[in-house]
Amino acid sequence: MTLFVDMDEVIADTYRAHITLYNKEFNENLTVEECMGGEVWQSVPENRRNRIHSHCHEVGFFRALPPIEGSIEVIKELTKEYDVFIASAAMQFPNSLIEKHYWLDEYFPFIDWKRRILCGDKHILRGDILIDDRTYNLENFDGRSIMFSSPHNIHTNGFERVNSWQEVAEKLL
Amino acid sequence: MTLFVDMDEVIADTYRAHITLYNKEFNENLTVEECMGGEVWQSVPENRRNRIHSHCHEVGFFRALPPIEGSIEVIKELTKEYDVFIASAAMQFPNSLIEKHYWLDEYFPFIDWKRRILCGDKHILRGDILIDDRTYNLENFDGRSIMFSSPHNIHTNGFERVNSWQEVAEKLL
Repeated sequence: MTLFVDMDEVIADTYRAHITLYNKEFNENLTVEECMGGEVWQSVPENRRNRIHSHCHEVGFFRALPPIEGSIEVIKELTKEYDVFIASAAMQFPNSLIEKHYWLDEYFPFIDWKRRILCGDKHILRGDILIDDRTYNLENFDGRSIMFSSPHNIHTNGFERVNSWQEVAEKLL
Repeated sequence: MTLFVDMDEVIADTYRAHITLYNKEFNENLTVEECMGGEVWQSVPENRRNRIHSHCHEVGFFRALPPIEGSIEVIKELTKEYDVFIASAAMQFPNSLIEKHYWLDEYFPFIDWKRRILCGDKHILRGDILIDDRTYNLENFDGRSIMFSSPHNIHTNGFERVNSWQEVAEKLL
């Protein structure tokens, strides 16, 4: 069984990183709870939204992301039963390519280079299961699509859902 | 129809680049004809083979590759009839990730970031046609596999074959 796992907001905490950087730059106290149900940029004043968008283009942003709780331990277990690939739609952010590679080397060294995919559009993936936080990735996947909960997708319906890596373990292990 | 096109030795001339760099470093006159039927490293003295292997790890190697004759013009035409993706097994060479991206920006700007795939293993690709020079990519593809002739694969049998981009055009356009 081939299992694809997305990176941003599934194993790497992009969402909280946006909030942390925003609070630091503007000396604010924005919380995840205040952003719940939308993207971080939608929760800040309009004249500051460009600063959120620019994070993804900054050198070092993707390399510094904290891993999502439980992802390392559960994926390590999953590799014993599944053919696990990390698949990230990274092409939009050229700086991120090498940073994502080194980030995986640090936190997921057991996912070697043969099992890493950086792409633009995930409908070209052939496999059995995709764990992702984005509707447009999940709805075009030709297999079992599992939505990983992220603050931005809590109101999205129509997908099998997991709220944590603990729940992934209960479903798939 | 989804069409995947490999990079090295299909649209980017890695093979001749190895020879050019080898000749420059050792002041030799190795030709493609002398390497025919094998890899470039197999045609040089054993104590120099490591130098060939190291090319792919050198900064700038992939960025400087010349495009394969006819590839730009024919692929531009193919994009009018097919959903064309460039798919390169690049993960083994981390430096190559950004270089391949910029190389495509220069020579194939009409293949935007959504249609670029950098991976380790191509059996995860879902689509209709794969044009590639490597047996291990073509034999695991779940569609029409077309071998693009390269000096190293001229003795390989068992695949539909094209010898040039002109022949690709005749078959697919």
